[in-house]
Amino acid sequence: MDLREPIKISTLGEALGALLDDQSGNLDLEVTHFSTAELAQAGAFTFINDAKKWPLLEQSHCTCVLAPSALKEKVEKNDLGKTWLFSKNVDLAARDIKQKFFFQTPYQSHWQGIHPTAVVGEGSSIDDSATLGPHAVVGKNCKIGKGTFIGANACIEDDVTIGEHTTIHPLAYVGHHCLIGNHCEIKPNAVIGSEGFGYAHDHLGNHYRIPHTGRVILKDHVHIGAGSAVDRGTITDSIIGEGTKIDNHVHCGHNFVIGKNGLITGQVVVAGSTTIGDNFICGGHTAITGHIQVADNVQVAGFSGVAKSVERPGAYGGYPLQPVKDSLRTRQNLLHLTEMRRSIKKLMKKVFPEES
Amino acid sequence: MDLREPIKISTLGEALGALLDDQSGNLDLEVTHFSTAELAQAGAFTFINDAKKWPLLEQSHCTCVLAPSALKEKVEKNDLGKTWLFSKNVDLAARDIKQKFFFQTPYQSHWQGIHPTAVVGEGSSIDDSATLGPHAVVGKNCKIGKGTFIGANACIEDDVTIGEHTTIHPLAYVGHHCLIGNHCEIKPNAVIGSEGFGYAHDHLGNHYRIPHTGRVILKDHVHIGAGSAVDRGTITDSIIGEGTKIDNHVHCGHNFVIGKNGLITGQVVVAGSTTIGDNFICGGHTAITGHIQVADNVQVAGFSGVAKSVERPGAYGGYPLQPVKDSLRTRQNLLHLTEMRRSIKKLMKKVFPEES
Amino acid sequence: MDLREPIKISTLGEALGALLDDQSGNLDLEVTHFSTAELAQAGAFTFINDAKKWPLLEQSHCTCVLAPSALKEKVEKNDLGKTWLFSKNVDLAARDIKQKFFFQTPYQSHWQGIHPTAVVGEGSSIDDSATLGPHAVVGKNCKIGKGTFIGANACIEDDVTIGEHTTIHPLAYVGHHCLIGNHCEIKPNAVIGSEGFGYAHDHLGNHYRIPHTGRVILKDHVHIGAGSAVDRGTITDSIIGEGTKIDNHVHCGHNFVIGKNGLITGQVVVAGSTTIGDNFICGGHTAITGHIQVADNVQVAGFSGVAKSVERPGAYGGYPLQPVKDSLRTRQNLLHLTEMRRSIKKLMKKVFPEES
Repeated sequence: MDLREPIKISTLGEALGALLDDQSGNLDLEVTHFSTAELAQAGAFTFINDAKKWPLLEQSHCTCVLAPSALKEKVEKNDLGKTWLFSKNVDLAARDIKQKFFFQTPYQSHWQGIHPTAVVGEGSSIDDSATLGPHAVVGKNCKIGKGTFIGANACIEDDVTIGEHTTIHPLAYVGHHCLIGNHCEIKPNAVIGSEGFGYAHDHLGNHYRIPHTGRVILKDHVHIGAGSAVDRGTITDSIIGEGTKIDNHVHCGHNFVIGKNGLITGQVVVAGSTTIGDNFICGGHTAITGHIQVADNVQVAGFSGVAKSVERPGAYGGYPLQPVKDSLRTRQNLLHLTEMRRSIKKLMKKVFPEES
Repeated sequence: MDLREPIKISTLGEALGALLDDQSGNLDLEVTHFSTAELAQAGAFTFINDAKKWPLLEQSHCTCVLAPSALKEKVEKNDLGKTWLFSKNVDLAARDIKQKFFFQTPYQSHWQGIHPTAVVGEGSSIDDSATLGPHAVVGKNCKIGKGTFIGANACIEDDVTIGEHTTIHPLAYVGHHCLIGNHCEIKPNAVIGSEGFGYAHDHLGNHYRIPHTGRVILKDHVHIGAGSAVDRGTITDSIIGEGTKIDNHVHCGHNFVIGKNGLITGQVVVAGSTTIGDNFICGGHTAITGHIQVADNVQVAGFSGVAKSVERPGAYGGYPLQPVKDSLRTRQNLLHLTEMRRSIKKLMKKVFPEES
Repeated sequence: MDLREPIKISTLGEALGALLDDQSGNLDLEVTHFSTAELAQAGAFTFINDAKKWPLLEQSHCTCVLAPSALKEKVEKNDLGKTWLFSKNVDLAARDIKQKFFFQTPYQSHWQGIHPTAVVGEGSSIDDSATLGPHAVVGKNCKIGKGTFIGANACIEDDVTIGEHTTIHPLAYVGHHCLIGNHCEIKPNAVIGSEGFGYAHDHLGNHYRIPHTGRVILKDHVHIGAGSAVDRGTITDSIIGEGTKIDNHVHCGHNFVIGKNGLITGQVVVAGSTTIGDNFICGGHTAITGHIQVADNVQVAGFSGVAKSVERPGAYGGYPLQPVKDSLRTRQNLLHLTEMRRSIKKLMKKVFPEES
């Protein structure tokens, strides 16, 4: 990403505040673009988060490097002719510089204000600073807060409340009566607040939909990925806690409740009525069954199956779920299954010859 | 959900018809809201479907309880000061009361009639009682039946026929020539009738799309979940049988045929040209391969893999698929795999010392 | 699919060019519809790609059969009273005839030109021969090439370039600055160029979105399935190589790079920063981890887990991944796991009686 106006490195350093640990080299130099070390041209701002990538810097044409504080000594011996910013949290510092100086996200296209083709139902109040993109549809009795952006062709049903500085991307859907917090982000084609998969059955095997009257509540700073779906609760609400981020194609069943600062990666499925604590981290393509409890501070590896409650914090993996180290051993031993069976046959023949 | 006007419990009981087994207490009392036992306030209608939840009722402020007939004796001894409706199918009875008195689903927003921003192609006939929401698009030569609702920003391609009292939610897609029955529901961002993943290949490894000219046919009372996709058939049709309900993010490949009253849970994938019988029940995140047959009355557990035809009714699970009891044993034994391998090594050393 | 005007079989044969190996029977006859052998009526064009299906032809009312060259001898002995076209690549020949004479895909509805309800931002250039369907939204500074079709309610963000003869289906999304090639197809509700799931974290466990400024680049002849999502790169681009086809509900993480002529089937998830070579073929519901490399000419079976780089071409399957033959054996042996454990217990008791 190129800057319109070159920026002094000292300005970048100041903007980092407490994230800046130290700096060295010519801080009056200017940078013009944000780049990887490999693709950097003169004037580039780049960063490395791993000392092993040092050789990339030796080849790089970049002007300024944001690097881990642990590299300071190495830089003192060999500064490569670059300007250095040091941080103990390079990833966060790089993110802050990129966000503040190079490209502000979430991206909100150039449409501003209420587009003439947007449709708004009666009784809805849209803050003057909010945006409704072309063909966006907002139902009746909705409230859309300050600075909130609703993208093209998005659909907000009746009686929805959306907080401030939230981004509803194009083609996303928010169901009736849902409550979306501040600084949330709902990505394209995500569906918040569809009815859950709950049916009552008669003796003939017919299924009758149970009306789902709970809401979906997204607390502040929640992100929902492209194409993901969070079903509304049956009677009570589905609730996603503050700061929790959900990746693409994740399915959260009815009555799903999760705490703060979770991270759920692509194509995870969580069946209905499951409750998960704070700081949950879940790898992609994992299945979590319904009606279970998962404690705070649990991590689950990708492609795992969680079939019962997880009562203690820790890292888990596999199906059935085990502590992650054990699950890696199980997985590794599966490679020997064929040979194991052969050995057992051989042993049985020798030890119990009368049975063979 | 609160009622505008309080309702007499005797009215609820009458509405249940044959689902009402018995009643006791003051039937002239009125209820004002539908609630869980825990959250109920005075005036609440609630239900329990499991005798184990009795302690919740002892704490509950609810006025009326719908309970299993099996609890009658217990209630006779201790009526907790409440009014009771008894049913042999509490789930269905609770659903009926909720649907009739508290909240009618599927939810269809407040838009009524053909919104001025909706676009309809030539030769299409839309019943006078149908609704097209804002920015809904209907192609040419379509037929939209009585009481059918097409939500905001939904897209119906050319030559589609949709029956009566069907709900196409906002942002859903129905491909050309598809046939949607009566009382169906297609949830937001679902895709019905996209082309299947079928290609012919030349000797250079290039792939050429095979035109998919079969339709998707949804029989009456079919529900399709948010973000799910049902591909059209290659030459013949993909068909979803009467009363079958499909959850979110389910992928049904081309030429998929399934019978009546199936239930397919979230993130199941069914590859192309597979045929499934009546009353199929499938847990979430299960993969079903293409070109196989599954008999009537088959249940498959979640996170399973169905790699070949299932010829007999019954409950199955795992990958490879086994009768569900065996699959639970297999899964449980996986936890011992590391220890099993260690034992085998030890046995081999002892029994065949010359080989070690 | 029925033709408006019957077509002479000799015309079909000529259209096949080099794909036609031989023909026999009355080439002056005409065909009127394209059908399976089973459903064919008089006048039908049909094909079989497998000699085992011969009995279907004996019952079929079809007029013309496209068949593998290997069947010529059999036909000479018994022509069943039909006209025959022979090809060494029946699937491709059938596809070509269907595409040229019966139904041209991708289907593009009947809307033509720029619909009056479409919205186009400033500075965008739309080729005169392109179509924007009803309520389609195109941002600013976009370029839409010759013959390209953008369906109803689709959303193209700012600064996007789309080549020639590409089809963006209704309700699809293309993010800012993305680059879509010629003859591509993006199916309904697919999301190209959403931000990746990349966050930096502070010491309190809060997650901060890293702005994703890389693009998504689809080379020519790329197809993306319904509801699939391809996230943009963090700094560099996510790139899908020429001719690669992706099925429904596939999730491609940020910085995903794949070569030419790949085939990725439904509900595969590829985590971020993984690079895959040419001619990749992947079965459905497979999970591929992030930050790995997969060589050219790799095939992975469905419902597999790829947890580390694949350095050699070949066919693989299972989790952990094995050469496909080994993975089939492993899977088969899993069915014996319970019995294996029982045998080990018995052996231990006999061989190490002191331990039991």
